[in-house]
Amino acid sequence: MATFPSTQCFRAHSSFPPSTASSSLSSSSSCLHGQFHRIAVSSIPKRFTAARVSLQSQSVSHDNLVGAQDGAVATMVTPIENETPFKKLKDGLRSITSSEELKDATEFDVNENESTVSITVVGASGDLAKKKIFPALFALYYEGFLPKHFTVYGYARSKMTDAELRNMVSKTLTCRIDKRENCGEKMEEFLKRCFYHSGQYDTQENFADLDKKLKEREAGRASNRLFYLSIPPNIFIDAVRCASLSASSGNGWTRVIVEKPFGRDSESSAALTKALKQYLGEHQIFRIDHYLGKELVENLSVLRFSNLIFEPLWSRQYIRNVQLIFSEDFGTEGRGGYFDNYGIIRDIMQNHLLQILALFAMETPVSLDAEDIRNEKVKVLRSMRPLQLEDVVVGQYKSHTKGGISYPAYTDDKTVPKDSLTPTFAAAALFIDNARWDGVPFLMKAGKALHNKSAEIRVQFRHVPGNLYNRNFGTDLDRATNELVIRVQPDEAIYLKINNKVPGLGMRLDRSNLNLHYAARYSKEIPDAYERLLLDAIEGERRLFIRSDELDAAWALFTPLLKELEEKKIIPEYYPYGSRGPVGAHYLAARYKVRWGDVGVDQ
Amino acid sequence: MATFPSTQCFRAHSSFPPSTASSSLSSSSSCLHGQFHRIAVSSIPKRFTAARVSLQSQSVSHDNLVGAQDGAVATMVTPIENETPFKKLKDGLRSITSSEELKDATEFDVNENESTVSITVVGASGDLAKKKIFPALFALYYEGFLPKHFTVYGYARSKMTDAELRNMVSKTLTCRIDKRENCGEKMEEFLKRCFYHSGQYDTQENFADLDKKLKEREAGRASNRLFYLSIPPNIFIDAVRCASLSASSGNGWTRVIVEKPFGRDSESSAALTKALKQYLGEHQIFRIDHYLGKELVENLSVLRFSNLIFEPLWSRQYIRNVQLIFSEDFGTEGRGGYFDNYGIIRDIMQNHLLQILALFAMETPVSLDAEDIRNEKVKVLRSMRPLQLEDVVVGQYKSHTKGGISYPAYTDDKTVPKDSLTPTFAAAALFIDNARWDGVPFLMKAGKALHNKSAEIRVQFRHVPGNLYNRNFGTDLDRATNELVIRVQPDEAIYLKINNKVPGLGMRLDRSNLNLHYAARYSKEIPDAYERLLLDAIEGERRLFIRSDELDAAWALFTPLLKELEEKKIIPEYYPYGSRGPVGAHYLAARYKVRWGDVGVDQ
Repeated sequence: MATFPSTQCFRAHSSFPPSTASSSLSSSSSCLHGQFHRIAVSSIPKRFTAARVSLQSQSVSHDNLVGAQDGAVATMVTPIENETPFKKLKDGLRSITSSEELKDATEFDVNENESTVSITVVGASGDLAKKKIFPALFALYYEGFLPKHFTVYGYARSKMTDAELRNMVSKTLTCRIDKRENCGEKMEEFLKRCFYHSGQYDTQENFADLDKKLKEREAGRASNRLFYLSIPPNIFIDAVRCASLSASSGNGWTRVIVEKPFGRDSESSAALTKALKQYLGEHQIFRIDHYLGKELVENLSVLRFSNLIFEPLWSRQYIRNVQLIFSEDFGTEGRGGYFDNYGIIRDIMQNHLLQILALFAMETPVSLDAEDIRNEKVKVLRSMRPLQLEDVVVGQYKSHTKGGISYPAYTDDKTVPKDSLTPTFAAAALFIDNARWDGVPFLMKAGKALHNKSAEIRVQFRHVPGNLYNRNFGTDLDRATNELVIRVQPDEAIYLKINNKVPGLGMRLDRSNLNLHYAARYSKEIPDAYERLLLDAIEGERRLFIRSDELDAAWALFTPLLKELEEKKIIPEYYPYGSRGPVGAHYLAARYKVRWGDVGVDQ
Repeated sequence: MATFPSTQCFRAHSSFPPSTASSSLSSSSSCLHGQFHRIAVSSIPKRFTAARVSLQSQSVSHDNLVGAQDGAVATMVTPIENETPFKKLKDGLRSITSSEELKDATEFDVNENESTVSITVVGASGDLAKKKIFPALFALYYEGFLPKHFTVYGYARSKMTDAELRNMVSKTLTCRIDKRENCGEKMEEFLKRCFYHSGQYDTQENFADLDKKLKEREAGRASNRLFYLSIPPNIFIDAVRCASLSASSGNGWTRVIVEKPFGRDSESSAALTKALKQYLGEHQIFRIDHYLGKELVENLSVLRFSNLIFEPLWSRQYIRNVQLIFSEDFGTEGRGGYFDNYGIIRDIMQNHLLQILALFAMETPVSLDAEDIRNEKVKVLRSMRPLQLEDVVVGQYKSHTKGGISYPAYTDDKTVPKDSLTPTFAAAALFIDNARWDGVPFLMKAGKALHNKSAEIRVQFRHVPGNLYNRNFGTDLDRATNELVIRVQPDEAIYLKINNKVPGLGMRLDRSNLNLHYAARYSKEIPDAYERLLLDAIEGERRLFIRSDELDAAWALFTPLLKELEEKKIIPEYYPYGSRGPVGAHYLAARYKVRWGDVGVDQ
């Protein structure tokens, strides 16, 4: 807990135990930015604790059809972040005995009828907004997860009418495959709640105008505001300043989702955090790493902590190595401008893979509360050695012709300098110097323009000591060890490779999979990571967002290496487009007696 | 090792290290029945140790097409069991440097060209012989597992010609589904090797006549003889006496496969063993328990000992209970005469289920050698408490009408006394008082005329201590624990029930299976248990046969209970034909905080 700020402003929350809530309100009434009062409460949204929440929420969704915005102008404007809960209003009004009853009552009355959520997508005409954010918001609406009163605002510099925005947005909306019937109808309803506001990212007046529009839609209800900053890093701070000063909620919460990059190194990241914190409290900042929203990453903690069979094996005693593998089967394809400034290590390893590693390796948290989990993740990161140059292999793809088709080199991309040394591939060996993981190599591998598209976690277990069946395995004992594979994408699956007797009269062993293939088991489509994360931000669930001390610890591991790579102008190992990447990755693995699990006949 | 006879006659074996073999021969030359010299050698047939033995053996199978019996009469007759190896003959003839070379050379030359195996099915016209033994022998031949020179003899009292036997046998032969092409041809070849000899089971002269016929077929080659006693228990000893005295091999091994029942209790079993041992050495007696030949029972040791992930969990620390379940969906159906004298406890529990329990629970053996494994099994049995009446529930099926069809009661069977109290169902709680299993209930359940046909092992793991996800499971924590299921039959499978996050935005957990379904994974048909066991007997592999001290220990556990049940005339709990059996089984389970895993929606 040492790394966690010791005070924190009270935050309104649907699952807040009401008895605690009322007693806490007096202390939070003076809660101003920078003056937070820490309260020990569970911050877990109800959907995580109830047995069948999606059904509950779906029953709420019928109400969505009824709700509408009756225009009404509210006046109070204040730049102060104030997450004052509205439960106070209810306390005097009802006579309630059961705390469960009160919780439900509070949640439904306050959230559904007397509060609103305004979601402003800043950078609405960008690719991410069109491809991910608006579709995710629609999916949440479609599934009944959005509150009764909500408004979506697109914000960007270009001139556009509401109708034009709706037309643009509608092109990327899709319906869940399992209930297409009323999809068109739902789309219409959703689009009616979408509006557009044109403005500069650095002009307070433009945000003040937005604020007026938001107030109209809020119609005097409690105002909660979420800003999704889908804009380039150089205008982050300006937009945060303007939104915070001119468009914060006056009587509800204001939260800002920011996208990576969170700086290029420790220094720039710290500067960014410092700048953000001029205008926002840490609890208002939702640093998104969309990998944390992936279904199987979410499931990682469930697997570990709700099954007896895994946790006893989860240590250096039984685990030989852990592999975190990310590969894309395409290159920068003419859009390398941003990438060339960052490279694969910053783009994938330092955030996505490191976050998964931390979740994988952390100690059991005190609870599933965001702060408890994030505390444990920070501990893992702080137990790790900063990366050494000799533990890293960098690569860059070169052009390759196969089957008459010519694939370009990275430096053929017109947006990339011809002499760029930026790695499009990297493999690294990391170590956690704590009691659980001492000496266990955590290998990461990430690359573009490889032979396949995948993201997976591979856990290779140790050899069986004194294995009675050694002579049945021949010489390659490595291939006889157990392996747990969590395939994050595509085609989600969990499988455990075990040695099994091949049926027959001999005693031939093979590696077979104890397999859980999601597509075969679950008929429901798996939600996109952005849906989960947007909903979490709306609900104030911070578990899957990166805290600033996590970010600092992550940068501390990678910054010395990144500087050395750049200062020494390390030449990457070139690999053909569409190949399995530089062979150097195998030699790195071999140094630590590891064999990559994703290469071979029986992956 | 204390329970193992300290001396044992040398036995010829294909995988025998030749250097040891030649030095041992001098001491074994005086090896007579009752005077055994123990030699420390591996007794594991080569097919268990080579990486791809079935392929090897299949290449041998082509030779089978060539080989034929050129009649020639041998003379030597002696009742002495003598497993003298023929490697001696080779020693002076060849100059061999590599021991591997010698091993292979010895194996092929001696076994394939200069030795024969004669398999005599005593009780050839019985059901077991027709349905299981002859088909298993043909399957072994078809797959190329039988030696080059072999002969099959049917022996029974009725008069029959060779042609009639062949006609009878041919009706039950089937071909492996994966290569039907040359099946008819193979069948013809096999049937040409089948002969019939009519004789009484208690008449030495008749066996002496058989001996003459066998010698003719053996044509002067080394003579190895296997007798499969598929006859009622009351004529066991007579047949063994006659076979041993008048039809033992003079210059090779003689082995006898005996089928259960091995007595009715400790005393009768000991008497049977004593009688058998008048004529046979322990190493000549192959007590068959066909459950030990089942593919997934064979795989049990592979799973435990060749996978790192299971053995650490294999103890009271992580396992809450173990369930061994056997059910048949039919009753005695007019053939209850034998059964009524034994009952389900003797018929299924005391042998099949107890054998599986011992394999499941044993400590890691020194090696996979038969004696090492059987030593560990005996230790488990000897660590167990004899069964108490209060830990047992017995049942008997009564008639039941469903969908217009009337199913008979057990006592409706004309071969069963009207007032029979013989249990057709039993459930029992057993305990192993050793360091690994102290306090862990091992529950057995076996019954006839139940709702389904199945045999499975279920391992229920403990609750997760301090489970973070407790509130996601609701009130029924039992159903949230991990479970490993090994489905022995039908439709072989291994699956591990784990808690998994249901994909979606909430945090709903379910129990999903990490699944290995044999039919989906392995295209090859799984061999029948009898094939495996017959081949083992031919190869002298005793791993899957019951040693007499095992048998004694098994009876010691059940005899007091069986006596008490019979003396007190305990009335069984009646259950309808086709039901799930007496509810008493649930109360028994509940006493030990167990819930049967085979009853429920998500088995």
